Amino acid sequence: MRTVGVGAHAKGREEVLNALEGLGRKLADQIVKGRSPALEIPARTLANVIWDSKERLLRLGPKKLRREFLDMGEARKFMQTVLMLSLITRAIREEDYPTIRDLYYAGKHTIEYIDEYGKLRREETWDTQKESDSVIQDIEVVTGFLREHMGILHDTKGKIVGRVVIRSGGDTIDCSRMGDGAYSIPPNPDSLDIISLDAEYVLVIEKDAIFNRLNKEKFWEKNRCLLITGKGQPDRSTRRMVRRLWEEHGLPVYILTDADPYGFYIYSVYRSGSITLGYESERLATPGARFLGLTVTDIYDYKIPRNFIIKAKERDLKRAKELLNYPWFKQSKEWVRQLELFLEKQEKVEIEALSGYGFKFLTENYIPEKLSTSGWIE
Amino acid sequence: MRTVGVGAHAKGREEVLNALEGLGRKLADQIVKGRSPALEIPARTLANVIWDSKERLLRLGPKKLRREFLDMGEARKFMQTVLMLSLITRAIREEDYPTIRDLYYAGKHTIEYIDEYGKLRREETWDTQKESDSVIQDIEVVTGFLREHMGILHDTKGKIVGRVVIRSGGDTIDCSRMGDGAYSIPPNPDSLDIISLDAEYVLVIEKDAIFNRLNKEKFWEKNRCLLITGKGQPDRSTRRMVRRLWEEHGLPVYILTDADPYGFYIYSVYRSGSITLGYESERLATPGARFLGLTVTDIYDYKIPRNFIIKAKERDLKRAKELLNYPWFKQSKEWVRQLELFLEKQEKVEIEALSGYGFKFLTENYIPEKLSTSGWIE
Repeated sequence: MRTVGVGAHAKGREEVLNALEGLGRKLADQIVKGRSPALEIPARTLANVIWDSKERLLRLGPKKLRREFLDMGEARKFMQTVLMLSLITRAIREEDYPTIRDLYYAGKHTIEYIDEYGKLRREETWDTQKESDSVIQDIEVVTGFLREHMGILHDTKGKIVGRVVIRSGGDTIDCSRMGDGAYSIPPNPDSLDIISLDAEYVLVIEKDAIFNRLNKEKFWEKNRCLLITGKGQPDRSTRRMVRRLWEEHGLPVYILTDADPYGFYIYSVYRSGSITLGYESERLATPGARFLGLTVTDIYDYKIPRNFIIKAKERDLKRAKELLNYPWFKQSKEWVRQLELFLEKQEKVEIEALSGYGFKFLTENYIPEKLSTSGWIE
Repeated sequence: MRTVGVGAHAKGREEVLNALEGLGRKLADQIVKGRSPALEIPARTLANVIWDSKERLLRLGPKKLRREFLDMGEARKFMQTVLMLSLITRAIREEDYPTIRDLYYAGKHTIEYIDEYGKLRREETWDTQKESDSVIQDIEVVTGFLREHMGILHDTKGKIVGRVVIRSGGDTIDCSRMGDGAYSIPPNPDSLDIISLDAEYVLVIEKDAIFNRLNKEKFWEKNRCLLITGKGQPDRSTRRMVRRLWEEHGLPVYILTDADPYGFYIYSVYRSGSITLGYESERLATPGARFLGLTVTDIYDYKIPRNFIIKAKERDLKRAKELLNYPWFKQSKEWVRQLELFLEKQEKVEIEALSGYGFKFLTENYIPEKLSTSGWIE
């Protein structure tokens, strides 16, 4: 196995703590100087999300919002931001690893005050988790750290197997020695080190059951690759793990999904992220990810039997039209051809349909053919 | 660590193959003898599911269905059963590990025949996966094997960490050396051996994010326990893994969920399984599982702030009433008290609400208190 560099990517808790405390200090300084405390926050609006066609990434543009305490329309949001900042800072200091829902509850309380007419009023610090999540996102874009760097935990769905040795929390984990199981990707993949790697590419599989099948067949061993699944729409950790393998270790990444707009959308999330969360894409997206299949043309090239084909639903057509508007699809002739063919035929197929040609058709014919003929779409 | 026995539970592929081939041979014999081939299948109807109060398990009763080929009403179902039997037998012989969806596609084809009026007719072997799944269940109850024993794969969601060493597929996996990640439970836990174990109990956590938090805090190390999550409603593998740890290794099992009927239902699935799939419960259920919390009374005993309490929805009330009819709830005074209090107050609470008392309240106060005062419900 190739031994690879260690740790440059990790954001130490020290570094994160300094940045958060720095923000707090700035606010305190403003108050001490008798000024109205204010925060400048990059705008997370759709209009401020820019498609960087060179890097093939979504980025936040230059537009910033000024959140001032002494501004009736901003005071509540300002209070929420400072409250969340203090919760996260305290959690880091006390070595806590809260989830975003823990943070919601930890910060939720009723503020009582007397209004200008002398009446007792009550206001919740936040009413819904949507509000507290939104200030977490603000803190992410202000500091440039992901929530994972701040030790905030969330649901993880990703699994990995193959010849890669990982170092995490003092343990050395050999992902080629997981038996019929797999290594469940940690919530913060930036905290792990990839200490050795012996693989030529990463195969990302939409469906968990197919991942289990390929794992059981030791596909990763026979084909010198890593297998990853994010179980449908991937979570942040799986996306970050895939990105690191591509960016730091130069592994080509291939995505395998059903031949339907939901599968294409999953590819799109791995590749570029979602437009409304454009700022995440700088760290979580894998611009070089290739779509291995199943494509719309596969349905006809592989002569999938008519009775295996599923009629597209209204929401499939709607999603296909949306995808045609994404810059990374719009600028790809092949993607436009696929999506237009889908809209014309209105037919979709599941990856398991290949089992009509035998259970090993996927692993012994389909995937090798696609790889050897460069039959993927970028 | 205690070293424990190896492998008696595993169903060898040989044994399974013999049973399936035996079934086929029986049918062939009937045909050779000029009789109408027929299968006897335990009825999977609700009326034939029996609550075994001694073993605290659901079981199939004595009622059997006779599925005959030369019976107009049964011929289609008979054909489907034999088709599935042949697909599974072939898969085992060829070392394939199909998913239930693979089996659906592998068997799906159009049968053409000339009817009694000389007209060409077409019929699908099965129209939906519901039909092919149903015959898989029939084959499970006829043979007494779980689908996992037959090498049929499915989605897996379970994760485990703690001081347990597992042997699977030739690999030795130490679940206490997973860093910030975890070991993803294999699709067929019966194929793994637990070779050593150093834990006093199993804590099953409904929510993945809470599992990640307790793992990050090394709760399992400080408290000498195993942590497992099935991410909400558990899949079959997670249930089987929990069952084995309880049955073969005598570990008490505690379930931790939100204080709401969905959480209680998750407990119910671990403990007894679902009534409509009663036959699975003999192998997948953990009759001794204890509900650690959060209980309805916890909401008031722990003085959860009013603004953390969520008003129950119509479907919560409906589910609570259903639970009151399950024998394992109906026969428990404490469960009846909890469910009736819920129906009266119509209030629920998430486990993260405890974070209002600090991020460590759950692990340093709530869980230890419950365990030391035997404050669980059985």
